[in-house]
Amino acid sequence: MKDIRLLMIGFGNVGRAFARLLMQKQVTLENSYGIRAKVTGIFTARHGACINANGIDLNEALHLVENKQDLGVLSTQSFKGDTFDFIKTCPADVLIETTPVNPQAGTPAIDHLRTGFECGMHGITANKGPVVYAYRKLNELAQSKGLKFRFESAVMDGAPIFSLHRHTLAGAEIEGFVGILNSCTNLLIEAMEDGTSLEDAVRHAQEIGIAESDPSNDIDGWDAAIKVAALSTVLMNHPITPLDVDRTGIRGISSQMIADAKLQGKRWKLVCRGGWENDKFIAQVKPEMVGVDSPLFSVAGTSSFVSFALDVLPGLGILESDPSPKTTAFGLLADLIDIYKGA
Amino acid sequence: MKDIRLLMIGFGNVGRAFARLLMQKQVTLENSYGIRAKVTGIFTARHGACINANGIDLNEALHLVENKQDLGVLSTQSFKGDTFDFIKTCPADVLIETTPVNPQAGTPAIDHLRTGFECGMHGITANKGPVVYAYRKLNELAQSKGLKFRFESAVMDGAPIFSLHRHTLAGAEIEGFVGILNSCTNLLIEAMEDGTSLEDAVRHAQEIGIAESDPSNDIDGWDAAIKVAALSTVLMNHPITPLDVDRTGIRGISSQMIADAKLQGKRWKLVCRGGWENDKFIAQVKPEMVGVDSPLFSVAGTSSFVSFALDVLPGLGILESDPSPKTTAFGLLADLIDIYKGA
Repeated sequence: MKDIRLLMIGFGNVGRAFARLLMQKQVTLENSYGIRAKVTGIFTARHGACINANGIDLNEALHLVENKQDLGVLSTQSFKGDTFDFIKTCPADVLIETTPVNPQAGTPAIDHLRTGFECGMHGITANKGPVVYAYRKLNELAQSKGLKFRFESAVMDGAPIFSLHRHTLAGAEIEGFVGILNSCTNLLIEAMEDGTSLEDAVRHAQEIGIAESDPSNDIDGWDAAIKVAALSTVLMNHPITPLDVDRTGIRGISSQMIADAKLQGKRWKLVCRGGWENDKFIAQVKPEMVGVDSPLFSVAGTSSFVSFALDVLPGLGILESDPSPKTTAFGLLADLIDIYKGA
Repeated sequence: MKDIRLLMIGFGNVGRAFARLLMQKQVTLENSYGIRAKVTGIFTARHGACINANGIDLNEALHLVENKQDLGVLSTQSFKGDTFDFIKTCPADVLIETTPVNPQAGTPAIDHLRTGFECGMHGITANKGPVVYAYRKLNELAQSKGLKFRFESAVMDGAPIFSLHRHTLAGAEIEGFVGILNSCTNLLIEAMEDGTSLEDAVRHAQEIGIAESDPSNDIDGWDAAIKVAALSTVLMNHPITPLDVDRTGIRGISSQMIADAKLQGKRWKLVCRGGWENDKFIAQVKPEMVGVDSPLFSVAGTSSFVSFALDVLPGLGILESDPSPKTTAFGLLADLIDIYKGA
């Protein structure tokens, strides 16, 4: 049995879903994987921080944060300082990073992970930023210290994309990919299909918390471009940033275009593509009209899909239907198991 | 570098595609996985057999069989006997089993694998029979000898189904599955959508080699039922045989039903299901009418699809588009890498 100490940076929807899943899967972790995990530190932006080397009571932590109270009461040692001081202070084996994405630069998540590696912790993140802006550097730093860097939840929540490549596609070459990777725009286009204007659809999406107050990250295709960059960088060993992606968002899709597509039995989708065409690497986010014969047609709501072209198979598609924060949390848990399974 | 000796039983379309892929991936195997593989024995039903402890020239073997000549000329030692004598005689570390499926009993493939395990070889098969009729026994025999039993290609060719479960879904529970797992019936229904009668469609499928001379294995849902049994047995730890599957084939689908579905914008598909509903395990193969909002709708031609319901995600779908014998061969290669990667 391996005793593993986890340090959590971020305790929002995903972090809290991870804490719940960790409790739910405790017996599975112990019996099937020989892992006895405890959380020794939680650092939040708005609800304080706590350290307990013997393991924090996660039910109490969840209760406190959900009641907008400070985590400090759970701490067995006093702590003052920023995230970096916290990482350096808290005794832990693995850093679980779930802070919000900074789509322009990937910081401060990159620096959280770097500090973790320097302190001898494995690093797991649900954040796309470090993958797109610092994959090679972080990976090299981790490897130089005999540590692992994992990020399954960065694209398509907890659906196994990176681990599929790492484990089950061993021996195959990925030549390209196509998919629907941003669910906010997928929902907005569907609302337009139901007769809502883009403006009204955005307003509604903001009200129910799916779109951010500045919706351009989704609408202008930045989030999709980040995911294209992440897949190209990691799976195709072709490091690009979102700025290298030929990017068109959904602002140009009019109600008339939606209606015309419907008449033809088709739908508009914001399609992501990456891959080699002759000697040129194509990385693209663009609205495309797809028909019922395409697997993209039925990708609805918050579902997402990616199909890989392999040298041994023209198309291997992964469809993630109706994910929740629990799904993202599962990606973090799968990363944790992956780190210790081979150890 | 590990030197690995392979013994091949069967050298038909899949066996030969494996031989070609092995040559194509030689450098990848050596550089990425430290595997130097050679084939020391090939046994065929109609083209003789050969043994060469130093490694058979696979190009020569392919040339001989494709020209309907006997493999015996490549043998460095004389051999007389049946498949079992061959397995006991040929020096090898891994048995690659690609004989045709016996849907009623799984023999003789089960006995080939058993003999291989008894001789100290790992066992890899593309054959569903041993999985459905002898999974636990073969697995226990292999484990008792410190060997591995792998069969990725038994369902959906080389698409990673079993390895997905083994590696990348670690920590998740599979609660059920739904999919399209028999491509022959999928093609026949499509031909009927184009106005062909089932009888004519079957005749054409037989002419181009997709349907067998006795098409009932596909048409009556046996092949699909075997796959449902394999997934239930391995992925859900619920061992059933094809006889336990509630099975309805496609004979009852009339041209009128196809036309009616078309009018509603729907299609008939032979749908496979397995999983727990309340306390009852449901295993079913049955024609269902699906609409454009279902991922099953666009599964066309020889493509196949399965979606798993997980405790952490309502749907994780795997779509295999346009596979070839190379895809099945990849499943065998992936199994080989999987056996030696962790070793």
